[in-house]
Amino acid sequence: MRFCSACGAPVELKRPAGDTLERHVGSACDKIHSRSPKVVVGAVCGSQDQELLCHRAIEPRAGFWAVPAGYLELGESTEEGARRETREEACAQIEIMSLLGIYNVVRIGQVQLFYRARLVSPKVAAGLETLELDLFEWAAIPWDELAFPSVRWVLQRALELRDHTGPHPPALGP
Amino acid sequence: MRFCSACGAPVELKRPAGDTLERHVGSACDKIHSRSPKVVVGAVCGSQDQELLCHRAIEPRAGFWAVPAGYLELGESTEEGARRETREEACAQIEIMSLLGIYNVVRIGQVQLFYRARLVSPKVAAGLETLELDLFEWAAIPWDELAFPSVRWVLQRALELRDHTGPHPPALGP
Repeated sequence: MRFCSACGAPVELKRPAGDTLERHVGSACDKIHSRSPKVVVGAVCGSQDQELLCHRAIEPRAGFWAVPAGYLELGESTEEGARRETREEACAQIEIMSLLGIYNVVRIGQVQLFYRARLVSPKVAAGLETLELDLFEWAAIPWDELAFPSVRWVLQRALELRDHTGPHPPALGP
Repeated sequence: MRFCSACGAPVELKRPAGDTLERHVGSACDKIHSRSPKVVVGAVCGSQDQELLCHRAIEPRAGFWAVPAGYLELGESTEEGARRETREEACAQIEIMSLLGIYNVVRIGQVQLFYRARLVSPKVAAGLETLELDLFEWAAIPWDELAFPSVRWVLQRALELRDHTGPHPPALGP
């Protein structure tokens, strides 16, 4: 951030009164700009003991496999966001069952929320950000070709819960 | 947002290629600015069947009671954020036990994560943003003087779990 989004003047780094951290402050209007972590929402989508994975068409990690996930938008809840991402990436309708885990990626300012979901219909198709997709038996999951550590983490969590019925706590990740 | 934080020129509203929504785009540099929901982290902190509430010194809702909570900062995990907010508002050290609930406030773009926590020591004191604080028996909780609907919601959730032992799922709020 170099310029104030409110007044267009350069920003200065200073610690506002009563605050504990330095913030970018508009040099003409004194508006304080706090930079915030972003929320990523995703879903591990199962259908008859098979799990949906998307072969990523876009960077980062194009060509690797991931569960449907992406940035939460203004104007939607976290569950709505997970449903939208699954619709966009896999043309799939899901029913959300539970929260599987919260995974913090502090280094890049992300809080990732992953839900356990059920495919309402086995009809799925690659969306714009997906090269191809497939439903994998657990024994066929391409563990060495997954896009991100959090995808591996949340799939392992889903695998641990494979024969679990009833409510469960989410995993609280790093 | 009126000006681009990267180039200082006015922003334009347009839909980037491959995107589904209009975004603010710098008119000189074409940088895309996505506005994102923010994460609020808080903790319902108990000690021997008493719950910690802070009488808010600051707006919004100064003079009303709340659990320690506030915006997650860059550079910390959600659990670290809940511990920091509790330290800042109540000078208290906590041990986080579980995730109590996720509460979406879509209208103002907030995802609120509330943890169940245990006060490591009964030594608490009002921080800068707190007028006073107190440990309340459940029968004495000031239900009609709580600062926000999410505070009532998460306290009710903690009350439901009062005699529960062992793991539990988080409540998935509105």
